Amino acid sequence: MTNSAESGRTGVFIGGALGDIAATMVVGALAIRHRHASPLGMVSDQAPFAALGLVPMDELRFGGIDVRRGKLRDVARTVGDTSRTFSRDLLDAVAPTLDAIDADVHCDPCYDCDAVRPSYSDDSLADVVESLRDRLQHFRRRHQLERIVMLDLASVEATPAPVIAQSQLRAFEAAVANDDRRAISPSMIRAYAAFLEDCAYVNFTPNAGAEILALQQLATDRGLPFYGSDAKTGETLIKSVLAPMFAYRNLEVMSWEGVNMLGNNDGKALSDPDRRTAKMSNKEELVPRLLGYPVHSGIDINYVPSLGDWKTAWDLIHFKGFLDVPMTMQFTWQGCDSILAAPLALDLARFSDFALRENEAGPMKHLSSFFKNPLGVEELAFIPQFEMLLRYAQMHEKRHVQNGKRKESA
Amino acid sequence: MTNSAESGRTGVFIGGALGDIAATMVVGALAIRHRHASPLGMVSDQAPFAALGLVPMDELRFGGIDVRRGKLRDVARTVGDTSRTFSRDLLDAVAPTLDAIDADVHCDPCYDCDAVRPSYSDDSLADVVESLRDRLQHFRRRHQLERIVMLDLASVEATPAPVIAQSQLRAFEAAVANDDRRAISPSMIRAYAAFLEDCAYVNFTPNAGAEILALQQLATDRGLPFYGSDAKTGETLIKSVLAPMFAYRNLEVMSWEGVNMLGNNDGKALSDPDRRTAKMSNKEELVPRLLGYPVHSGIDINYVPSLGDWKTAWDLIHFKGFLDVPMTMQFTWQGCDSILAAPLALDLARFSDFALRENEAGPMKHLSSFFKNPLGVEELAFIPQFEMLLRYAQMHEKRHVQNGKRKESA
Amino acid sequence: MTNSAESGRTGVFIGGALGDIAATMVVGALAIRHRHASPLGMVSDQAPFAALGLVPMDELRFGGIDVRRGKLRDVARTVGDTSRTFSRDLLDAVAPTLDAIDADVHCDPCYDCDAVRPSYSDDSLADVVESLRDRLQHFRRRHQLERIVMLDLASVEATPAPVIAQSQLRAFEAAVANDDRRAISPSMIRAYAAFLEDCAYVNFTPNAGAEILALQQLATDRGLPFYGSDAKTGETLIKSVLAPMFAYRNLEVMSWEGVNMLGNNDGKALSDPDRRTAKMSNKEELVPRLLGYPVHSGIDINYVPSLGDWKTAWDLIHFKGFLDVPMTMQFTWQGCDSILAAPLALDLARFSDFALRENEAGPMKHLSSFFKNPLGVEELAFIPQFEMLLRYAQMHEKRHVQNGKRKESA
Amino acid sequence: MTNSAESGRTGVFIGGALGDIAATMVVGALAIRHRHASPLGMVSDQAPFAALGLVPMDELRFGGIDVRRGKLRDVARTVGDTSRTFSRDLLDAVAPTLDAIDADVHCDPCYDCDAVRPSYSDDSLADVVESLRDRLQHFRRRHQLERIVMLDLASVEATPAPVIAQSQLRAFEAAVANDDRRAISPSMIRAYAAFLEDCAYVNFTPNAGAEILALQQLATDRGLPFYGSDAKTGETLIKSVLAPMFAYRNLEVMSWEGVNMLGNNDGKALSDPDRRTAKMSNKEELVPRLLGYPVHSGIDINYVPSLGDWKTAWDLIHFKGFLDVPMTMQFTWQGCDSILAAPLALDLARFSDFALRENEAGPMKHLSSFFKNPLGVEELAFIPQFEMLLRYAQMHEKRHVQNGKRKESA
Repeated sequence: MTNSAESGRTGVFIGGALGDIAATMVVGALAIRHRHASPLGMVSDQAPFAALGLVPMDELRFGGIDVRRGKLRDVARTVGDTSRTFSRDLLDAVAPTLDAIDADVHCDPCYDCDAVRPSYSDDSLADVVESLRDRLQHFRRRHQLERIVMLDLASVEATPAPVIAQSQLRAFEAAVANDDRRAISPSMIRAYAAFLEDCAYVNFTPNAGAEILALQQLATDRGLPFYGSDAKTGETLIKSVLAPMFAYRNLEVMSWEGVNMLGNNDGKALSDPDRRTAKMSNKEELVPRLLGYPVHSGIDINYVPSLGDWKTAWDLIHFKGFLDVPMTMQFTWQGCDSILAAPLALDLARFSDFALRENEAGPMKHLSSFFKNPLGVEELAFIPQFEMLLRYAQMHEKRHVQNGKRKESA
Repeated sequence: MTNSAESGRTGVFIGGALGDIAATMVVGALAIRHRHASPLGMVSDQAPFAALGLVPMDELRFGGIDVRRGKLRDVARTVGDTSRTFSRDLLDAVAPTLDAIDADVHCDPCYDCDAVRPSYSDDSLADVVESLRDRLQHFRRRHQLERIVMLDLASVEATPAPVIAQSQLRAFEAAVANDDRRAISPSMIRAYAAFLEDCAYVNFTPNAGAEILALQQLATDRGLPFYGSDAKTGETLIKSVLAPMFAYRNLEVMSWEGVNMLGNNDGKALSDPDRRTAKMSNKEELVPRLLGYPVHSGIDINYVPSLGDWKTAWDLIHFKGFLDVPMTMQFTWQGCDSILAAPLALDLARFSDFALRENEAGPMKHLSSFFKNPLGVEELAFIPQFEMLLRYAQMHEKRHVQNGKRKESA
Repeated sequence: MTNSAESGRTGVFIGGALGDIAATMVVGALAIRHRHASPLGMVSDQAPFAALGLVPMDELRFGGIDVRRGKLRDVARTVGDTSRTFSRDLLDAVAPTLDAIDADVHCDPCYDCDAVRPSYSDDSLADVVESLRDRLQHFRRRHQLERIVMLDLASVEATPAPVIAQSQLRAFEAAVANDDRRAISPSMIRAYAAFLEDCAYVNFTPNAGAEILALQQLATDRGLPFYGSDAKTGETLIKSVLAPMFAYRNLEVMSWEGVNMLGNNDGKALSDPDRRTAKMSNKEELVPRLLGYPVHSGIDINYVPSLGDWKTAWDLIHFKGFLDVPMTMQFTWQGCDSILAAPLALDLARFSDFALRENEAGPMKHLSSFFKNPLGVEELAFIPQFEMLLRYAQMHEKRHVQNGKRKESA
Repeated sequence: MTNSAESGRTGVFIGGALGDIAATMVVGALAIRHRHASPLGMVSDQAPFAALGLVPMDELRFGGIDVRRGKLRDVARTVGDTSRTFSRDLLDAVAPTLDAIDADVHCDPCYDCDAVRPSYSDDSLADVVESLRDRLQHFRRRHQLERIVMLDLASVEATPAPVIAQSQLRAFEAAVANDDRRAISPSMIRAYAAFLEDCAYVNFTPNAGAEILALQQLATDRGLPFYGSDAKTGETLIKSVLAPMFAYRNLEVMSWEGVNMLGNNDGKALSDPDRRTAKMSNKEELVPRLLGYPVHSGIDINYVPSLGDWKTAWDLIHFKGFLDVPMTMQFTWQGCDSILAAPLALDLARFSDFALRENEAGPMKHLSSFFKNPLGVEELAFIPQFEMLLRYAQMHEKRHVQNGKRKESA
């Protein structure tokens, strides 16, 4: 474990850099860097992770791609105003740095990169890969970056045809060469380019990303860490906290119905049946898998424009206890999506940077508590998932102390 | 670990045997024994505890004391009808066995034993102890019991003067001899008599019970297990499940307000300010202790007669996330108190019986997940508490397997 | 206004006589008649309607048709047990009378009469009409009935082709003669037969019933009262009570989202997209019509079997006030559908009987407060609708007093 | 009814001019005047009242007294920022006008004028009256006001001794002369001074104000309109909308429990048991009075600082329907208190000004829908109360049309 101060700058290259979460994350990172805000909401800022020496806000550099054109400042202003989250004063304070970042945010030749306003391109998939690699190389050189984390925050994409899900890398590369847009989704391209450029890759979205075998193989071969998918920020988080209690107490959940209402771009995209498939299945399977038996577990995702970024979820839990008596619990969650997601995105960037630094290759299973669909981890309950992260930190801390002692004694 | 089949009968001697929880517990135990009901709601019935060979329903015998006079069948009928919990058919099926238990339920010379309709007695404390020991001896002989667990389900008592909380056994016994009713509360007498008669003691209530040093000492000296206090059945349970999530995710809880409405005897007793002190402090301290910082955490307990046994709780959680944005979660819990509590009381009787069998003396800290105020355990979060119970079961299972191997090889 | 005591018996002929609402209604009417239950939940039992001399429970006789075969007692037992509504004792007390009614409940040659388990018949529409008229004639003779109200409680039917909605009676009769099952729905047949037999007709369901012009004309020509449709029992009722407040206070409702969960046959039928159309449009148009401007007003109806008859609705109202500040109200309604509906069905039978007695022909607009889609009434707010009923009662009371005086002076 | 354009300027003299509601009201009035905001939330801005020609925002002049010293701009900034209600941009736009109003806002010699930080004064009650009359005279002259409405928005005061509640004016004046501060509360002084200076008086608070007989007599004698008390802005409003539905539908409310949480000065003041008496009784009596029978109707008002001005109320309605089946409704109201109250305060000022213009003396009973405790009005249900206001407007409109015709024909 090297000292972060010596470890140089880290780039965070964002897929979907002009989205609400990205803008909130960058504003927040700058606000924290300039002491205009506390790091509240960031998991990685807490005591158990202090000894890891995670990269500080000052050493992060942001860039990325988006299908839209625009300025981060404008996105941030819109997000802040419509959601009544951050004040104009805060935005003014970070605006110059924000504007400087625009130079590293590119409108990318991307097919169907954005769920809401798709843009089509004449470039072949191979062209897109090439272009993205150029962007990453340029980003690395320009900021003299030691490491880059590709942070995928793009919109929900249509589910790709599953033809290459279990294929070898060779087959994947053939599909790219053949410009097979049905099989290769934009998030796969982002993960692919990231690995070719020795970046870590984190998939915040329900998209495929690095989940396919070929890409996992590529990352492992090149010694790169990656993880995903579908960040757990609201209703699903609560489910993964509450459901184990019903299991442990032997209370039989008959029905667990969840209704999600939201009015942001994500909500708009999810109102398209094609795009909601991935998201829905991550959400619907959760309760039965957590409890270990079939449960009537419906999920509604309703687009309610007036709510904007304020996701309102209502859950009804109908369960049976002693002598088969039915009882109910219900909860309402009113959280601002970008405010909940942004600090987790920063956490994931920092933990991924640490894994890069430590030369840890493969899926970062210790990050399972961040995801609805944690790659390669069976455990879906939040607390045990989080304990995996705590153990990871303890293990590194211990090694660090031992290394320290060894060095001292040397 | 002996086989339960060989281990003989176990008596469950109930303090407050004519209360709602007791009646529901006995009806349920009989219904399960006669296959009229599943053991839903019982923690101890689940797979991880199968290897312990906990005492089966058939081997349990019930008896106890109450300040009221009455028949279990009548109490059960009233509870079942007013709360619409168990059917008349179920009650009819177990009624004969229920009636037989009446012979072991005594109206006890007890001072202020019942919070709602206190009854005063001319007997001295020493007399009360003597009488209770006689009851226990008689109960043991009559049913040829191998072990007895004193299960304290009595109503909330007024908080005793704290003069002997830290005293030695000698001082406690002097206070009993001097008939000092200000210092010695009925629950202490029950625990004291239980230990003198080599029973385990479990305190389901917020009362003092075995919490005072002198009684813990007595139990440990005599090699007896005990535990408490204040069973965690509803709103507090949920708090101890949810609060860790806010901590781990670095979301700052500003206020956690809880409102409890209930219409049973417990609710009536708690509407008396003198009696609610113990309960309230167990509940109010929880959130700040779980989170590790001061939180505005008000608790209302309102007596709403029409709700009967259906405890309705509403909690408002007002928390701050990234960039200090305030968000809210609220939940409503509608649970039937006796239905939630009764199976846990059975669990505690079974686990206590097991500890007696295994000659485990002192506080049964592995039972912390059952209590709001777990004796000697700092951990207040439900999941880690439950993991303690799982580890306890694994440890015993392992020992059992090793013993088995040793025997085989012998 | 004749005295009810002199006015003879009234028949209530139920479409869907073996449904949950019908069974609950009949059990309740008998329980009230025999003083086993209070008339709680019945609008017509209240003081403002006392002077009308509405038909008492003793004078009501029940009969009807259903697509299923079965005994009322069995339906009632199932409803009472699964919904934990009425006790076995109550059911036992009314069982003999209930059994006697079975003789007047017929399995009817009906095409697709029941939404859940459709039954097809070889009988032509003309046969069905004939058979139904026979049933009504027989019912009238057998019980020496002065008047009959056809009370339509059948399941949701698929929306009929709208070809004859605006046609004259002649065209309707031609379609019946031509056996045009696409245009003529079962509820229309029930209304048609009712009118031919001089019965009042009340449509409790979202089905077409007497809404088509031809049938309204027939009723008016024959001097018969009728009304509907789609009884307002739960979430929609609350909407029609609350929405006017937002209007009067000039609070702009941006979104009013409603989620309905239910597990009874009605819920099952409504999970069929074809059948839910009628119901949904009655519900979705309500808020915008009540407020007078477009509102995002989504409705979900989810079939959650474990809830049975306990309809649980959650509504989120997102509104804007002074300086455009967004605020929210949410409510949860947990009501037992048959328990809410049954007394209203009795009310409608009694008010319809009264209208028959008073020779009032045409739509009974004073009953608008009972319906989601009140025929010929623009007012959708509950309180003003109810005030129409109060004025109707006052008007009759006044006339009665004047008639009384006139008679006296004569 | 004179044309508002010809009718000259109206002064609004505010008791508690530096409170949250006052600041929000003034900012809003200026924002509307300068077209920076819509008049959303103002009842008086709606179509049914258009023909009354109520005083427009341009003709209103603001002034008042407060126990605190301060600038409106600072109060407004704090309110807007902590409650995230109005933006800094909006505030900047109205700031100059706001600053000009400061000259008419005085720190008044007032005893215990403000519940939270009471300030004591050596001035006698007679001095206070004199000083207040001077302020009003000065305010009138300085702005050439045609009419003044005293709008009482001050904090909750301790309940005065009831000795003069039923006394004649002479006794009241004697108590003032004798400096009897136990009997005469600050709000009475404000009403008294207002009437002596020919102002209308509106009491937005639960304080006594003009409720005592002597002051009502004075107002009537001097031909002045007045009204109150305790504005109905949130939970109580909803109660007065919903309760009639339960009555009309013959659903017996067993318990209606309300929990109010708020963190503003009002909440702080109400956490003082002495001050909450008035407020609580207005709230607790409501449901039983609306329903006409005794109902268990508890009210909690909890001070939760983090909520600030965002009043969060949770109500549980436990009711019985057909066959005595218990059901529940619950609602959560999350409203910003000052945002809900401010437009109503403007409404009351405008309607009071209209009454002054029309020379209507005595209690303005047509304003009952605005108050929890409407003076002299038995009707507590919101809709019928509002219909009184609609009829008042229609009556004036009709007269206006007739007058117009008369003039034309003249």
